[in-house]
Order: sequence, then structure tokens, then C-alpha cells
Amino acid sequence: MSIAVPGLQQAYDEVRHYSLALAAPLSAEDQSVQSMPDASPTKWHLAHTTWFFETVVLGAHVPGYRPFDERYAYLFNSYYEALGPRHARPHRGLLTRPSSQEVRAYRRYVDEAMSALLDTADAELLARVEPLVTLGLHHEQQHQELILTDILHAFSCNPLMPAYHCAHVEAVSKPKRAQPIEWLRQTGGIVGIGHDGNGFVFDNEGPRHEYLLRSYDIAHRLVTCGDYAAFIADGGYARPELWLSDGWAAVQREGWTAPIYWIGDERGECGERVEREGDGNWRVFGLSGLQALDADSPVSNLSFYEAAAYAEWAGARLPTEFEWEAAFDTPGIEQMTGHVWQWTRSSYDPYPGFRPLPGVAAEYNGKFMVGQQVLRGGSSATPPGHTRRTYRNFFPPAARWQLTGVRLVRDN
Amino acid sequence: MSIAVPGLQQAYDEVRHYSLALAAPLSAEDQSVQSMPDASPTKWHLAHTTWFFETVVLGAHVPGYRPFDERYAYLFNSYYEALGPRHARPHRGLLTRPSSQEVRAYRRYVDEAMSALLDTADAELLARVEPLVTLGLHHEQQHQELILTDILHAFSCNPLMPAYHCAHVEAVSKPKRAQPIEWLRQTGGIVGIGHDGNGFVFDNEGPRHEYLLRSYDIAHRLVTCGDYAAFIADGGYARPELWLSDGWAAVQREGWTAPIYWIGDERGECGERVEREGDGNWRVFGLSGLQALDADSPVSNLSFYEAAAYAEWAGARLPTEFEWEAAFDTPGIEQMTGHVWQWTRSSYDPYPGFRPLPGVAAEYNGKFMVGQQVLRGGSSATPPGHTRRTYRNFFPPAARWQLTGVRLVRDN
Amino acid sequence: MSIAVPGLQQAYDEVRHYSLALAAPLSAEDQSVQSMPDASPTKWHLAHTTWFFETVVLGAHVPGYRPFDERYAYLFNSYYEALGPRHARPHRGLLTRPSSQEVRAYRRYVDEAMSALLDTADAELLARVEPLVTLGLHHEQQHQELILTDILHAFSCNPLMPAYHCAHVEAVSKPKRAQPIEWLRQTGGIVGIGHDGNGFVFDNEGPRHEYLLRSYDIAHRLVTCGDYAAFIADGGYARPELWLSDGWAAVQREGWTAPIYWIGDERGECGERVEREGDGNWRVFGLSGLQALDADSPVSNLSFYEAAAYAEWAGARLPTEFEWEAAFDTPGIEQMTGHVWQWTRSSYDPYPGFRPLPGVAAEYNGKFMVGQQVLRGGSSATPPGHTRRTYRNFFPPAARWQLTGVRLVRDN
Amino acid sequence: MSIAVPGLQQAYDEVRHYSLALAAPLSAEDQSVQSMPDASPTKWHLAHTTWFFETVVLGAHVPGYRPFDERYAYLFNSYYEALGPRHARPHRGLLTRPSSQEVRAYRRYVDEAMSALLDTADAELLARVEPLVTLGLHHEQQHQELILTDILHAFSCNPLMPAYHCAHVEAVSKPKRAQPIEWLRQTGGIVGIGHDGNGFVFDNEGPRHEYLLRSYDIAHRLVTCGDYAAFIADGGYARPELWLSDGWAAVQREGWTAPIYWIGDERGECGERVEREGDGNWRVFGLSGLQALDADSPVSNLSFYEAAAYAEWAGARLPTEFEWEAAFDTPGIEQMTGHVWQWTRSSYDPYPGFRPLPGVAAEYNGKFMVGQQVLRGGSSATPPGHTRRTYRNFFPPAARWQLTGVRLVRDN
Repeated sequence: MSIAVPGLQQAYDEVRHYSLALAAPLSAEDQSVQSMPDASPTKWHLAHTTWFFETVVLGAHVPGYRPFDERYAYLFNSYYEALGPRHARPHRGLLTRPSSQEVRAYRRYVDEAMSALLDTADAELLARVEPLVTLGLHHEQQHQELILTDILHAFSCNPLMPAYHCAHVEAVSKPKRAQPIEWLRQTGGIVGIGHDGNGFVFDNEGPRHEYLLRSYDIAHRLVTCGDYAAFIADGGYARPELWLSDGWAAVQREGWTAPIYWIGDERGECGERVEREGDGNWRVFGLSGLQALDADSPVSNLSFYEAAAYAEWAGARLPTEFEWEAAFDTPGIEQMTGHVWQWTRSSYDPYPGFRPLPGVAAEYNGKFMVGQQVLRGGSSATPPGHTRRTYRNFFPPAARWQLTGVRLVRDN
Repeated sequence: MSIAVPGLQQAYDEVRHYSLALAAPLSAEDQSVQSMPDASPTKWHLAHTTWFFETVVLGAHVPGYRPFDERYAYLFNSYYEALGPRHARPHRGLLTRPSSQEVRAYRRYVDEAMSALLDTADAELLARVEPLVTLGLHHEQQHQELILTDILHAFSCNPLMPAYHCAHVEAVSKPKRAQPIEWLRQTGGIVGIGHDGNGFVFDNEGPRHEYLLRSYDIAHRLVTCGDYAAFIADGGYARPELWLSDGWAAVQREGWTAPIYWIGDERGECGERVEREGDGNWRVFGLSGLQALDADSPVSNLSFYEAAAYAEWAGARLPTEFEWEAAFDTPGIEQMTGHVWQWTRSSYDPYPGFRPLPGVAAEYNGKFMVGQQVLRGGSSATPPGHTRRTYRNFFPPAARWQLTGVRLVRDN
Repeated sequence: MSIAVPGLQQAYDEVRHYSLALAAPLSAEDQSVQSMPDASPTKWHLAHTTWFFETVVLGAHVPGYRPFDERYAYLFNSYYEALGPRHARPHRGLLTRPSSQEVRAYRRYVDEAMSALLDTADAELLARVEPLVTLGLHHEQQHQELILTDILHAFSCNPLMPAYHCAHVEAVSKPKRAQPIEWLRQTGGIVGIGHDGNGFVFDNEGPRHEYLLRSYDIAHRLVTCGDYAAFIADGGYARPELWLSDGWAAVQREGWTAPIYWIGDERGECGERVEREGDGNWRVFGLSGLQALDADSPVSNLSFYEAAAYAEWAGARLPTEFEWEAAFDTPGIEQMTGHVWQWTRSSYDPYPGFRPLPGVAAEYNGKFMVGQQVLRGGSSATPPGHTRRTYRNFFPPAARWQLTGVRLVRDN
Repeated sequence: MSIAVPGLQQAYDEVRHYSLALAAPLSAEDQSVQSMPDASPTKWHLAHTTWFFETVVLGAHVPGYRPFDERYAYLFNSYYEALGPRHARPHRGLLTRPSSQEVRAYRRYVDEAMSALLDTADAELLARVEPLVTLGLHHEQQHQELILTDILHAFSCNPLMPAYHCAHVEAVSKPKRAQPIEWLRQTGGIVGIGHDGNGFVFDNEGPRHEYLLRSYDIAHRLVTCGDYAAFIADGGYARPELWLSDGWAAVQREGWTAPIYWIGDERGECGERVEREGDGNWRVFGLSGLQALDADSPVSNLSFYEAAAYAEWAGARLPTEFEWEAAFDTPGIEQMTGHVWQWTRSSYDPYPGFRPLPGVAAEYNGKFMVGQQVLRGGSSATPPGHTRRTYRNFFPPAARWQLTGVRLVRDN
């Protein structure tokens, strides 16, 4: 959905409702579990996104606003140092209280206050809060994706391997048969990178600047599960020369032999002890439960290390984020968004002239700009309308629980 | 309650019902959480005790018995190597499925099969299963205590500090004012130790044997919170000469400055960062929530290290388990059961001539006989009728989440 | 050697010289290495034992004594809380300075001061220092054994597998062919345990007290390498029913498949990755380097867990320390000292009425009385004259780097 | 020194001799110690650089060459997967054998074989081996710097705080009084980056390519200790808003309050527990031992996190590696090499079109291109002639044991 001032209340309602819809198929227990420090309980996501509006909008701009529960500021702050101390991230799964019901009451309380604010604010106040409300909605959309990836990880840790079902997350339609990769020639030269001024963007997408590119070829489609199975069958996880040093260390330390949710003969827990079954016999765990591997689907849930090793094996490489962005509108290019986030060979560094947003939002992006890789595109779990050509997602190179895949480029 | 053959069905019903009653005040989320590897979710306790009957009684002795769900054998085995592989203990909190409802259905399924068995078994079969059923009931009673101590720990990790309320766990009546310790003279000599043959006991309580004791004095009452507060006020946690070497290492490594559930000025999480507030101003977290310290109540939730350091400070010592047992019926002695488990200065070693039970039950006690200390007595969380004079409870010396306290002895 | 007042200076010279003789075959590098936190460098042992005399004798009893280097009090205190802060144990291997030469100069400086003291002290002063000097000499003898066991561990971590050679540590003569175990009947009853008053003993050997024993049979000899190889060949390391729970956890966590210094096909480092080669083909690493397994030699370097599992497999059990001591003079019993320390089934608890020594020596034994198992006897690395019938050695149950083996007993 | 074919033997002799000269002030113990997994013993550096020549040159190109000791291939391989298994990096300090003497004999043996090769090789063979010999010499120069930084770390862990003294490492002359920073205007535009074809370079310095820069100002000098002390005095280590998220996490987890080798009142070990003494009273540990802080010297031994926080505090930023390289010849710019390596705001990513060297050298640089930051310039420990304008050094952002500092830039 598009979020803009005129329809701000409607956008607010839609985004807020979508979060609840995503949680609907989950039991109270499901919504309370945390399977690893990187992931958070559904309930926590529902409360944290609410806390964001309460703190950044209501608390700061509505005189006399009384928080729903003063203790929630401690419980549901994620990482904002400027907003005070907070509950330790690895312990979010211990919060059996407040209950799912109480969190929903918290959401209603804040939603009502937000509606009252948007309903009664004068133009001056509206001008002040609108950017914050809009930021809050995009923030909540980011957590909507995490609701799905985090519960998928939690379910992968359960030997019963339950399936998540939700009418709001439609199964990606069965992909057509993957065609051989077509290499689309890009001429390079000086290109414009970053946000060009229209519509909401995060601060890390700017400032727009010129970047000098060599020519290159980009694959018209993503790497498929069938492609990746061939890499495994060719000994991909046993050949150190294909891997970055840190990646090979992860392979050996963690015992990786396949993507985290690929299941062979032996059932692993938490994706840790997956065994390969032999070519063509893989099953893949996903939001629909355990399914036979679909060779034509984009491969997903790869770490950057796996993505880079695959590219090396394929005689190609990963695109830089600049190459990816410059090729966005190339005729014939497919699957640029809506399937999997695409690892780039770009570290998450600031653009020239980057300055964080003022105020609380300063901590939103800039302070994470070290030790992470940029991902571009968007996945099947990304809420409709959330992503765009200039969007810069980022995760550490070892992360495997996001819907992350590969598009190849090559020098020409 | 007493458990015996004639009333076996009634005993079964009562014990099984009591578990559910203990869980009743807890939400589905509460019943699913695991706050540390040593603790387990309520739901897991409810299922594991059921699995015990299903596996040891029904599966082994009812031809054609079909398990409720074959996958549960993996999920709910605790530590029985002879019964096959099992879900890793630290991951019990990840089992959002089966749900609390499904676990209750599992209990009903097994309860019905058990009733049918007890109803229809001939004398020969009954003679075979009766010891196993009885063992299973005592086993379930042990887990009833753990349901309470484990949820108390989980709640202590929640900054909201919720209280557990349950009509079945009556508040211990407000203790009378603690009197000065009266030292009860014990003459020593050769005493009989261990089970004497009547009624159910665990294998570790035998064989009964003679033991030679020196004379000693035993305190007529337990150490109180007021006593222990004086130890803290006297610098007890800062004086290495009072502590065993491993205890002092724990004090420094973990930052212990008070019992795990004593709260001073600064609220700690999971009992890790408790600060002392100054003498007389302590609050104590328990099943009734956070309460002002009651100086006359027995101090609880001490590790063996803390118990031993207190005894050293008090110019006394901890009793051996033999001294404790020999003094059980001394006139004037109080609080021997029903308040807190009492740490002894005895390592958990086998009695002379000890052999484990045959079959599956062999793993019940014997294999844990190293690295643990014996506790005697019983706590306010111990189910009625469960403990006795010869009962040998055991925990590692650093354990602080059980209801564990101190009775002093001294040489004379 | 015997240590007594009349020959105190001579005893001092002999013990001090023996330490240097043990270090003589080692290079400066060898003397400086620390292979794990439990072990210490040779150079540290040489300095620490010197610090003991400097602090406990010279500093406390010689007016105007000036320490060799005031900073050594921090570097070479081991665990005496009462004597101030100290260098962290795991970092002893980082002390490339002071050099081996400087440590030897330190020893000479202290030895000269000690000689001057013993030469000039009047009877009153001599009466005060003699017990401390004697304690210091027995303390140094304990470290002499550690010099050997610690360097053996360090060398086992080196793929070059160097041999230690020292004329002062004579190879144990080739054992005669091991005879079948003869079971020596012990009648039990009330026996006297602990020190009886003559000669030096550590405080943990008293007070002497009576102990009531059942009758039992004790093996006339130690378990041999051949015996233990049969246990391995019979799947001893793969059968959980033979192991204590903590022991089985160690087997799985550490990947134990044989004693730490037994080497099969694959060379392991630090004893971590030893593979078995098949029956009869083991090599054993020791102070003489890597040697073919001698089936008649006592098995050594076992943890308590391995010792207990072996005894279970053999249909016998480990003796209590009381049983061991009571059988010491049994006609026909062999190998009670001088081969390997013998694990007992007794936790290291205080004797009835035990009180630590006064003063600094209070920290010598008592504070370690939890979480450890008693060993009796003495090994081929124990200095001549150091051990005795009542001697109580102790180590944690997982320790494998000491010369530790097994003698069996059985109920009768 | 310059390394070229005509003078290859002379260059070989000079580089190899310089390594020994650096080791000369160190005792055998000093040369054997490893203070953390990231650092290596001097002796290991001396042997590993020798192994490089033996394996890459002699073993591969001299028919019938017999290695000095076949076991050294396992001991002294650093990270070359293609060259087989190797000794685990964290255990290098356990190698008391081979001794320092044996390592010197190893060096002589290889040096003689190298001389014979260079003396007798025909033009064809010389053409093949020359690039490998040259690579080996630059490789050894890199380890020469590590010999100094690693022993400095080891000495910092010793409470005696010994000083390294070596005539070959001349004290940097007392810096002149630092002038206020002069900002040198850079116009940006398309600049050439990377190696331009003359002389030896590492593969990561190419291919040369064009890069589009904005205009910026660069500081004419490095940040000094005096500058950095002002940052500390202004609460720099207590203000999360100045830090990257991972940096702030390191500050809190590690307790950083000053650079690793700055010492306040309390002496820390291994730089872990350094306390600040108050402004103007710092001492700094270095190769000359502990010295009063020199406010005019470039600050050194900063992590990237500290460098970035300082820049944020100073209202400036770190240069990208492209900005740094483009400004190299700016008139008036000082201290570009020879003082400290300068952290850049560039992740260590491959240049466009980068391909690793063929053969064994493929593992030299490329496989480390993730998770590291580029450093430019060179330090006082960098061997003469080793570094250059296009040189790309790299370390993880938390590394503090290298001679690493800061030059500021700012947007204009």
C-alpha cells in the first residue's frame, strides 16, 4: 500500500491490521517463543511496533499522553540508546507476561490515541508528526517480514515441523519452468544511485550521488533450487577454494552441508544437523511446512557466504549494490522483487555525504554500518508496497534465517 | 496422599489431578517457557510424566497398546538412555507444539488406558505393573515440585514479576516469631540409616545399614531470613575465608551478593544482578510475588555454597545426611519437613551395597551419584505425603532455584 | 626422604635440589609453557614453591627480610586469598619474564636466606618455623609431581611428541606378567581411619576416627592396560549404561574413545582426537615418549568417570577411601603406592571434627572439599617418601592428566 | 629495501637477516609465547616465513628437494587450504619444540637451498621462481611487522611490563609539536585507483580502475594522543551516540575506557582492565616500555570502532580508501606512512575485475574480503620500503593490537 498524508489514517489502519492478520494463525505459545537471540517472538514484534508509535509520536507530541503501561518502555525498546535502558534481547522469549491478549489491548489503546491525534491535529502538528507516523508504518512493515522469518525459524526447531498458514501470505504461485540464464549486457558509465526525492525512503538510501560503473552482464533470473542442488552435488560444501575464509570457517564450525531449511535423510533441529540425502531427493521446510524441493523456485535462506561460494562455483560473481540498482529497469530482467532478497558484494557502508536522520530516528540505520552486507530487492514475505529500487536491506554475512538468495553477474 | 495397591486407581487419579491443578493458574504462554537449561516448561512436565506411564507401563505391559503420538517418545524422554534418543534439554522451551490443549488430550488418553489396565488386569499382571505405577506416581510428584520451582524461576526473569496463585499451594502460615536456636544434644554411636522395609522408597534410600556417628548438637530450627540478613550485613559475600573455593569462584564469577530471589534497590533479571539495599530493607520474590522480607521465615533458595559459608560464619557447620536422619525424631526438633530442603555436608554417594533398580528404572538415581550434594527434609512445594525421613534429594552445589535452606549442627 | 627437625637443613637441600633436577632436561621454552588452565609451567612451579618459603617463613619470621622482587608476590601466589591478589591462573604461560635464569636466581636468594635462618635461629624461633618449613617441603614435593604431569600434558599437545628424559625419574621397571586378580577378603567392622600422630601429615588426614565397614573383597593388584583394552574392545566407550551421567556427558561432549594418552591410527593433539586402532595395536604416550602399549602395566591417566565405568563393566566397583586405607597392610596386596594414584568412590569430604590448620595454611586443603574425588596411594611421579597410608589426594572427576588408575573391590 | 631480479639474492639476504635481527633482543621464552589466538610466537613467524619459501619455491621447483623436517609442513602452514591440514592457530604457543635453535637451523637450511637455486637456475627457471621469491620476501616483511605487534601484545600481558629493545627498530624521533589541523581541499572527480604497473604489488591492489569522488577536505596530519585524550576527557567512552552499534557493544562487553595500551591508576593485564587516571596523567605502553603519554605523537592501537567514534566526536569522518589514495601526494600533507596505519571508512571489498593470483598465492588476499576494514599508509613497525600509496592493509574492526590510528576528512 502507499502511505501518504491524505490517506495517513487509512494507511495506518491497514498496516496495523496486517500485523494482526499475520499473527492470527499462531497460538499464544507460538507468539511467545524466541528460537535464537537474532529472532524475536511475534508478540514482541506486535508490542515493539506499538511502542514505537507510543514513544516517538504520542509521548513526544501529545501533551498529557499517559502510556498504557510505563513498564513497557523497558520491555519493548529494541536498540534505541537515546530512549533509555531496555530488556536484554536474548531474553525476549521469557516474557510470558504481558500475554498476547494484553499486547492486543496495548495495540488498541495506542491505535485509539493515534486516531484521536490524526483526527484532531492542526496542520502544524500534523506536519510535525506525519514523517514520524510514516516512519513508524514502514518500521512496522519491516517487522511484519520478521514475524514470518522468525516464526519460520522457531518452527524449524520443532521436530514436529509445523506449517504456518495464513490467507494473507499467499503461496507464491508455482514458478514456471526456469529457463537457462540469459546474460543482460549493462554498459556501465556514470549512473545515479540512491533516492531521487519522491516518496518515503529510509535515510540510508541517500543522498543520491553519481557512481562510475564498468560494463557487466547481469542474469535475467535468480539462481534456482535446482541450480543450487547441482552445486551441492558437485561437492560445493567440501571445497574450500570456493569459499571466503570466514565462510569456510562457518562451514566447518557449524557443519553446514546444505541450506538451513533443506532436509535430507536425517531430520535436523534448528537447521543445525541437516544431512544430504542425495541429488534430487531434498525436501525444503517453509511457511507451508515440509515440501519436496522445487527445482524451479529461487533458492532461499542462504548466507552471504553460501551465495558467494555458489557464484564462485558458477564462474560468476555477486553484483555490487550499484550494479544491481543500475540494472533494475533492464528489459527482460525478472524476479527483481517479491521472491528473495538478493545478496550483493557490497558492504553496508554509508553513501557519500550520508547523515542520519535527526532525533530518535538517528539510530535507525547509520549505527549499523559496519560488518554487514547489503541485500537488494525484496522477498515473498516483504509486505506489498514496502520495497523499492533504492531500498538497502542489510544482514551479517552468516545470517541464514531471512529469505535470501542470489542473482549472478559477470564481467564482460 | 498414601499410594498403595488397594487404592492404586484412586492414588493415580489424585496425583494426576494435582498436576493439572498446579498448572491451572498458568496461561498457555507461561506453561511453555523455559528460563534456563536446568528448568523445564510446565507443559513439558505434564507431558513427560505422562510419557513415563505410557512407556514404562502401557507400552511394556499392554499388548497392542498404540501410543497417542509416536513422536512424543522423542520429545518427552528426559534422560533415559535405554529408551532411545531424545530432544535436547535446553530446547524444551521451543516446543510451542504440541499445544497445552494437545498435552491435556495426551494426558486423558493415557489416563484412560491406565484406568482400563488397572480395571481389567489379573493378579499376575497387577503384581508386575503395580511397582511401576507406584514409581510413576512418585516420579510425577517430584515433577510437581519442579513445576513450581521452574515457573518461579521463569517469573523471576520477567521484569513484571508476576505472582503465581493457586489454591492447591496454600501459603505457608505466617511463622511464629523465631526463637533463639536451641542446640539438641545427639549422642552418636552406631545408628541405622536408610529404608527399613515398609512402604515405597526410591532405590537410593537403601540398603539400610549401620553407621557410626560421633556425638553432636543439632539446631532445633532452620536458619531464618533474619539470621541470613545478618550474615550479609556482616560482609558475608565479601569474605573469601568463609567460602569453599568453588563457592568463592561462583560469588565472583556470578556477582552474587544475596540469595537469588532477594531484591534490593536495583531490580535484577533472572536473579543475576540483584543489589543489596541495606539491612532490613530486603524484598523477596516468591510464588506470591514480591514481598517484604519476613525475618522469621526460613531462608530459602540458597546454593550449597551459600549454606556452607553461612554455617562457617555462624561458627557451626552443616549436618551430614547421617546426622540429619539420626536426629529426625529428636524431641523438640522443628521444621524437619515442609519448609525448605536442607543442604547436608554429604556428597551424594551410594550406600554400601547399593544396586540400582532393574530395567528402565536403573537410570532413576544411581547414575547421578557424583558431583551432587544430598538434601534432606522437604519443602513447602513438596506434594503432601511425598517425602520421608530417609528421602535423599540431591542437587549440584551451585543450584539456587530450588527451595533450599539450612539447619546447623556443631561438634560437642 | 624423611623430613625432621634434626636433619631439616639437609631435607631442605635435598627437596630443593630435586626440583631443579626434574627441570634439568627441559629447555627454557619447555619450562615456560602452559597447555591448559589446570596445568602450570615448570618455571612457575619452581618460583611458586620458592614464594611459599619466602612468604610463609622468611617474610613472616625474619625481621627485616627483603623480598627478592616485590612483584613476585603477585605473580607466584597460587590461591591464597589471605595473601592478597594474584596473577590469573590461566595466564601463567604468558610470563616469559622473569626468565628461567631469573627464577633460578630467585631460588638461590631464598635458599641462602633459609640456610641463614636455620643456621642462626634459636630454639624458640626454630620451634615456630620448623612446622612451616616442613609444610613447605611437602608442598614442594606435591609440585614436583605436577612438574612431571604438567609437562607430560604439554608435550602431548605437540605433534612432535617429544620425550622427557631425566635420570632422576627412573623408568618403572618392566612389570612382571600380570596375574589374574586375586580377591583378598576384608572382614570389615570398626576400623581406625586417618593419621595416628607420628610424623608429618596434612590437615585433611585427620582427625583420626573410627569408621564402620562392611566386609568386602579387594583386588590384590591394579587394573592393567590389557584389562582396560578389553573394556574398550567390548565397546566400553559406547555403552551409556556403564557410565555415570556426568561421565557419559563428558564422553559425548569431548569425544573420548580411549584414555587421554592412548594413540591409535590418527594422531590427536592434546589428547583430544585420539582414535582407536583396533585391539592390541595401541601406543601410549608418556614421559619416555610414545611406546607400544604394555598390557601388564597399570592403566594410567584415567578420569574418575572412566575408572567407574570400567569397574561397572568388570562387575565390581571402586573402593571407598576407608576400604582402601583399611586394606593397606593386607598380606598379598600389591601396588598400593608407587604406580598410579587410585580413584576411590569417596567424595572429598571433611573427616568428622576436621578443622583447617591455623593461619595461612588454612587454605591448604579444607576449602577444596566439594566437587572432588579422593585418590589414594601414590604414583611413579610421586617423590620418594612423600606419600603414606593415610594420604588423601583429590582431583575433579573429569581430570585425566594425572597418573591415575584403578583398583577394584567387590561386595561379598 | 627494493626487491628486484638483478639484486634478488641480495634482497633475499637482507630481508631474511632483518627477521633475525628483530628477534635478537628476545629470549627463547619470549619467542615461544602466544598471548591470544590472533597473535603468533616470534619463533612461529620465523619458521612460517621459511616454510613459505620451502613449500612454494623449493618444494615446487627444485627436483629432489628434501624438506628439513617433513612434519614442519603441518606445523608451519598458516591458512593455505590447498597445502593440506595444519596445526590449529590458537595452539601455536604450545610448540616448545622445535626450539628457537632448531628454527634457526631450519632457516639456514632453507637459505642455503635458496642460494643454491638462485645461483644455479637458468633463465627459464629464474623467470618462474622470481615472482614467488619476491612474493615470499614481501610476505616475510609483513610478518616482520607482526613480530613486533605480537610481542608487544604479549609483553602487555605481563605485569612486569618488559620493554623490547632493538637497534633495528629505531625509536621514532620525538615528534615536533603538533600544529592545529590544516584542512587540505581535494576537488574530487574521476581518479585512478590501484596499482599502475611498475614494481611488485599484491593482487588486492588491482586492477587499476577509475573511481568518481566528491570533493572533500583532508587533515594534513594524524590525530594525536593529545587529541584523543580530549575525547576521553569529554566522556567519549560513555556516550553511545558517538559509536557504531557493534562498537558500543564492544565498549560494554570488554569494558573499554581507553586505548588498549593506555594505563591509568590501575595496572591492567593484557589491556583488559585499564583504568583512566584523569586527564593528562596517562602512560602508554609500547616497544620502549611504559612511557608518559606524548600529546604530540599520533594516537595508536585504536580499533576501527574507536577511530570512528573519535571522528564522530570531532565533527569529521574517516576517509574512504579512495579519498586517502587520491590525496597521497597533496602538498602539505604529512605522516602518510611510517607512523600508524590509518583506518578507512572502506570495507575490504574486491576492486572491480579483481581476480586472485593463480596457484597457491590465490589464498593470499581474496578469501579475506569480507568483514574487514581497509587500512592505508604504514606504521613505524612496517619494514622500510614495504608499503606504498596503493597498499591495502586490512583487519577486523575490533582489532586493537596493531599500530593503527586516525586521519580525518570532512565533506566540504
